[in-house]
Amino acid sequence: MSEKGRRKSKTTEKVSPKEIAGRIEKSANAMVGQINKLQDPEFTTMQRGKSNVVWDEKKGYLELGEKEVTRTFLNIAHARKFMQTSMIMAKTQEYLNHNKTASIREIYYELKHTVADTKENTFEGQDESDPIIVDLEHSVDTIREKLNLHANPKGTLYGDITLLDRMHHNDKFNASKLGRGGWSIMSRVEPEEIEIVDSNAEYLLVAETEAIFERLIEEGYPKDNKCLLIGTGGQAARGTRRLIHRVHNELDLPTIVFTDGDPYGWYIYSVIKQGSMALAAHSEFMSVPEARYVGMTIDDVKEYKLEAVTERMTDGDIKRAKEMLAYPWFQNKEWQAQLNKALDQKIRIEQQALANKRLDFVATHYLPEKIKNKIFLP
Amino acid sequence: MSEKGRRKSKTTEKVSPKEIAGRIEKSANAMVGQINKLQDPEFTTMQRGKSNVVWDEKKGYLELGEKEVTRTFLNIAHARKFMQTSMIMAKTQEYLNHNKTASIREIYYELKHTVADTKENTFEGQDESDPIIVDLEHSVDTIREKLNLHANPKGTLYGDITLLDRMHHNDKFNASKLGRGGWSIMSRVEPEEIEIVDSNAEYLLVAETEAIFERLIEEGYPKDNKCLLIGTGGQAARGTRRLIHRVHNELDLPTIVFTDGDPYGWYIYSVIKQGSMALAAHSEFMSVPEARYVGMTIDDVKEYKLEAVTERMTDGDIKRAKEMLAYPWFQNKEWQAQLNKALDQKIRIEQQALANKRLDFVATHYLPEKIKNKIFLP
Repeated sequence: MSEKGRRKSKTTEKVSPKEIAGRIEKSANAMVGQINKLQDPEFTTMQRGKSNVVWDEKKGYLELGEKEVTRTFLNIAHARKFMQTSMIMAKTQEYLNHNKTASIREIYYELKHTVADTKENTFEGQDESDPIIVDLEHSVDTIREKLNLHANPKGTLYGDITLLDRMHHNDKFNASKLGRGGWSIMSRVEPEEIEIVDSNAEYLLVAETEAIFERLIEEGYPKDNKCLLIGTGGQAARGTRRLIHRVHNELDLPTIVFTDGDPYGWYIYSVIKQGSMALAAHSEFMSVPEARYVGMTIDDVKEYKLEAVTERMTDGDIKRAKEMLAYPWFQNKEWQAQLNKALDQKIRIEQQALANKRLDFVATHYLPEKIKNKIFLP
Repeated sequence: MSEKGRRKSKTTEKVSPKEIAGRIEKSANAMVGQINKLQDPEFTTMQRGKSNVVWDEKKGYLELGEKEVTRTFLNIAHARKFMQTSMIMAKTQEYLNHNKTASIREIYYELKHTVADTKENTFEGQDESDPIIVDLEHSVDTIREKLNLHANPKGTLYGDITLLDRMHHNDKFNASKLGRGGWSIMSRVEPEEIEIVDSNAEYLLVAETEAIFERLIEEGYPKDNKCLLIGTGGQAARGTRRLIHRVHNELDLPTIVFTDGDPYGWYIYSVIKQGSMALAAHSEFMSVPEARYVGMTIDDVKEYKLEAVTERMTDGDIKRAKEMLAYPWFQNKEWQAQLNKALDQKIRIEQQALANKRLDFVATHYLPEKIKNKIFLP
């Protein structure tokens, strides 16, 4: 492959597993020190939940605020959580030191046992271990991917981008040469392991449905339009959000998002762009504040004469649209207008409804025209 | 890549798109002939539903029986369906002639319109077009994939198998060289388009959860054990079932299935092996009667001391287990025993629960031991 004119990746963000393991060790040593001095050992993390989520307009994403929570071992209400926290700390450090990764379900199963000579289980369910993982992420200021933990994978990558997997025989492959299926995005795509080598693409298109992903490939859209394509299959998984974030930043590619024209689709866009309340602490690693929204919009219905193929909004759609009207990051006239139009007309419009014009319309007319003329929502 | 000693694919099953288009044309011509002779035009398909599903013990899969249904245009109760059937026939023939494919949602949207000078829509919802597609599949004795239709993709392929995509620059790629992510299985993987070239694998392992898929890759299991790995991500999608069927038959590979130890997981296995009632007509193209089940079983709980990491069966699990006890294809002593043990103890056991031994236990002990000693359920 000629490297001429290809966009090289510039990896900026690098925290080594060793460094993260070091932070865990430091925190653990502090506790041991406190215990040796017969002091009450402490563990400090960030307060979570809506009351500590901040919309940072300048950065363009949701952030966690400054409120901290400190747990002490001698407080009986904290003792169980303290035990669980130490176990998760020890185990993730072990993963980091041995280049192992685990799903958040696996670490739960790995650590679950009955404490000797008691009937007490270390963890009763994954709903006990998951929040501890989040505690630890915040405490050592990282994301779970860098603790070598991950959730389930979902999402597909296609287009002229070359990746290299350092943990798998240094495989180097180009995602435009895997037939029409594309590369299955892993649950963890950290730069220490998955390197973005280069790309000839001029932008990244993120599509909500796998059906549109397949349609655009069948029409040769990514090749003709020199773009990369990521299919999220609904709400983007963490691995997929990380990859979008990295492609955007490391290759300096504009990111354009294409979802169904309904509150659920618009919310998917906002999570990719500004982050979510649940993961506000990680926006820095996951969000793409510069992302733009190409469609579907309620205006498209009239513009492209799609009246016959709209659907009625469900009660859930209406409730969600009303909530979104109030979110600070939807406080701009374009999105307020869009949400209000949807609520007035009580309609939604799917990406695949463009097939009503012609199967290839989305690839030959809709996307090229809107993208060329920059008909985006912010 | 040295081709020496590699297992070559022998494609046996080949029906050309032209042949399928010809069958549709023949059926349409017959109707036109009837109309020209002022006869009542007819369309014949197979009766569906439980009452026409047959368990063929010799073939080892579920089949559709012999009961036919004939629709006539002059019967007012059939007129709407007749119109819809002609539209789907014309459109799928167009797809076949122009090498286009569409999702079943797209064809619905493409055909939906208001009939001129009326307020009547051709289709009110996809729940009207989907059954017509099934009618047509049965009428021309094929599967929707060969009508160039497909549902959503899901599932991932990993391992030393070389595929070739004739519809995409003849891309030839090996699914062991795509890093740890693997190849995202398309919604349609028909032999005319996706060719299985060869493989060095000795068997195919199908895993229910994507988490176990990632675990086995991280442990180097497929390489060390010379196997291919397919992750289904829950119930296997049609494209994934087709690929399992083809890999099994064309490469002559034993197929071993690995799911959670609960009625849902066991049902996933039975659908891969014997087919489902809903798709009984297509077992010939999708099922793998020779598949074997490696785990998880209720016996594993004791054998591997997993008592601390079982879960309680839900009401849904119990209901499903009782139904499965009665299915003809579960009438063997091994599965009856398994289902009864689950119902007696009211427990289930997940694949990932093996992490309780050690993360790599599944790859270093559980699977190699059970597979080597052929500790399978039928």
